[in-house]
Amino acid sequence: MKCRVCREPAVIDVRRHNANFCRDHFLRLCRDQVAKAIEDFEMIAPGERVLVAVSGGKDSLALWDILLDLGYEADGLVLGLGIGDYSDTSTAHTVAYAEAKGAKLQRIDLREAYDIDVPTAAHATRRVPCSACGLTKRHLFDEVARDGGYDVLVTGHNLDDEAAVLFGNVLRWQTDYLARQLPVLPAGDGFPRKAKPLVRLAERETAAYCVLQGIDYVVEECPMAAGNRHLGYKEALDSVERSSAGTKHAFYFGFLQRAADLFAAGVAEGQGKADLGRCARCGAPSTAEVCTFCRLVERSAGAEPVALRPRGGR
Amino acid sequence: MKCRVCREPAVIDVRRHNANFCRDHFLRLCRDQVAKAIEDFEMIAPGERVLVAVSGGKDSLALWDILLDLGYEADGLVLGLGIGDYSDTSTAHTVAYAEAKGAKLQRIDLREAYDIDVPTAAHATRRVPCSACGLTKRHLFDEVARDGGYDVLVTGHNLDDEAAVLFGNVLRWQTDYLARQLPVLPAGDGFPRKAKPLVRLAERETAAYCVLQGIDYVVEECPMAAGNRHLGYKEALDSVERSSAGTKHAFYFGFLQRAADLFAAGVAEGQGKADLGRCARCGAPSTAEVCTFCRLVERSAGAEPVALRPRGGR
Repeated sequence: MKCRVCREPAVIDVRRHNANFCRDHFLRLCRDQVAKAIEDFEMIAPGERVLVAVSGGKDSLALWDILLDLGYEADGLVLGLGIGDYSDTSTAHTVAYAEAKGAKLQRIDLREAYDIDVPTAAHATRRVPCSACGLTKRHLFDEVARDGGYDVLVTGHNLDDEAAVLFGNVLRWQTDYLARQLPVLPAGDGFPRKAKPLVRLAERETAAYCVLQGIDYVVEECPMAAGNRHLGYKEALDSVERSSAGTKHAFYFGFLQRAADLFAAGVAEGQGKADLGRCARCGAPSTAEVCTFCRLVERSAGAEPVALRPRGGR
Repeated sequence: MKCRVCREPAVIDVRRHNANFCRDHFLRLCRDQVAKAIEDFEMIAPGERVLVAVSGGKDSLALWDILLDLGYEADGLVLGLGIGDYSDTSTAHTVAYAEAKGAKLQRIDLREAYDIDVPTAAHATRRVPCSACGLTKRHLFDEVARDGGYDVLVTGHNLDDEAAVLFGNVLRWQTDYLARQLPVLPAGDGFPRKAKPLVRLAERETAAYCVLQGIDYVVEECPMAAGNRHLGYKEALDSVERSSAGTKHAFYFGFLQRAADLFAAGVAEGQGKADLGRCARCGAPSTAEVCTFCRLVERSAGAEPVALRPRGGR
């Protein structure tokens, strides 16, 4: 097994590209794929300030590392979600990375800042944990990007993630979600521009990137996500990818090239955009008087903390 | 486990409907679902003559049986495809069913009528077997329907089939196929109307229907289809259906309700319809001077017959 570029011994095969790579050329491949995504979809202009949503997992740490390597001014933001050891370990990996690189990292601990944590908030508001977690992350990432004057907020969604989300949206033909499932969403209405520069990399590749770069990341999946639908969609697509390498790439990029516009046009025709006001508590863009996050905090702060209860254990 | 309708002991559970059924009420459910599909999609008007494409498998025999039971004038057409024992057994089951019901069955044996068989034709024309088989079936079903003055040609595609085809078309975003993947296609350009009255039944249900009705059918899958992509798509969807019953139904009918029109509009905008002439050999509608089937016959007839070579054995 030889590197496609230099013919030295390879350390990884990438079936989708029908090629093997040595360490250095694999790392270069990863950087090139991120640079290509940023350029193709106009995610970040030269000189713009970037906020990276970091979880401490392979994807967000690889993304941060590649952006710094490509010369972007990229600061990190990590949230203490309060999901037991999982959150502690995730934050520790993030802090260690930032210190080693001398990169700027902002931290918000939910318990310190809002007197909540994800398991307790999910329980108090009768939401599934992934829903409470998702809305919390979106709210705080948006807020920090806005308040910090960042030009763009980037997240570590990789090709497997995006293909699985697309699959879920297609299975239910959620045409409104399909109209917005793009690798970059423009700024507007008080929200920062949002981009997913890892859409050209599979999760196996971001994991290999971290290993080869010596970046420690949290290997476990979130214990609250076990058994959720998204993982089922990933497995279904994995089975097709195994017998036909490149299926996920063709699925996701074929969607962008040939179908996304059809859904965008369908939605534009069907409904006008709701006018966004501002949350009376925090000032975030909101259709209601008080935004969803502030309501979550109101209903959860001070509630008896609940023990971790993974989905699988129900 | 009790029947949802009469509370007598049930013989089958249908998770998608979250219900169990006794023999009689399950058979009624199957008939009702076919009748509903025919009505909802205006597949067959009262008094119209129906040609059923029969393979000898569970789906087409169940379809034929239900249509006769619903009072339609439904004749069968079975093709001798020359795929070894599989074809012989399939035809034998079909003939036995027709004789037992006193139903009218037409038979075309490819070797007798055209001096070809599917394995030989696939080999001679360097097509994958499923491609040679598919074009042969489409051509001959269309021809018999046209020459016999039938109003509609019906096929036994069930919900699992249609969901798997839809999944394949979506994975590659084949927008032209998506624009035409409908349960009924109107007659036109020399083609008969085509309909799929089983789209509301899963293949497990058509199998149970045949068993409960005492209809013998060929149980084996076609040996040439083993390992093809379509079966891989079915397995991927099956894995999602197992954890979330009703997924396939929502996927297929959601497509018809919320997405099919978008693709149809996209295609209509993009291209005019090619004018169809008539094949110089057989008179079938064709964009070329000689239609694909006649060219297949020309290149295959008289060729040394090839032994059966299942895909898996390559």
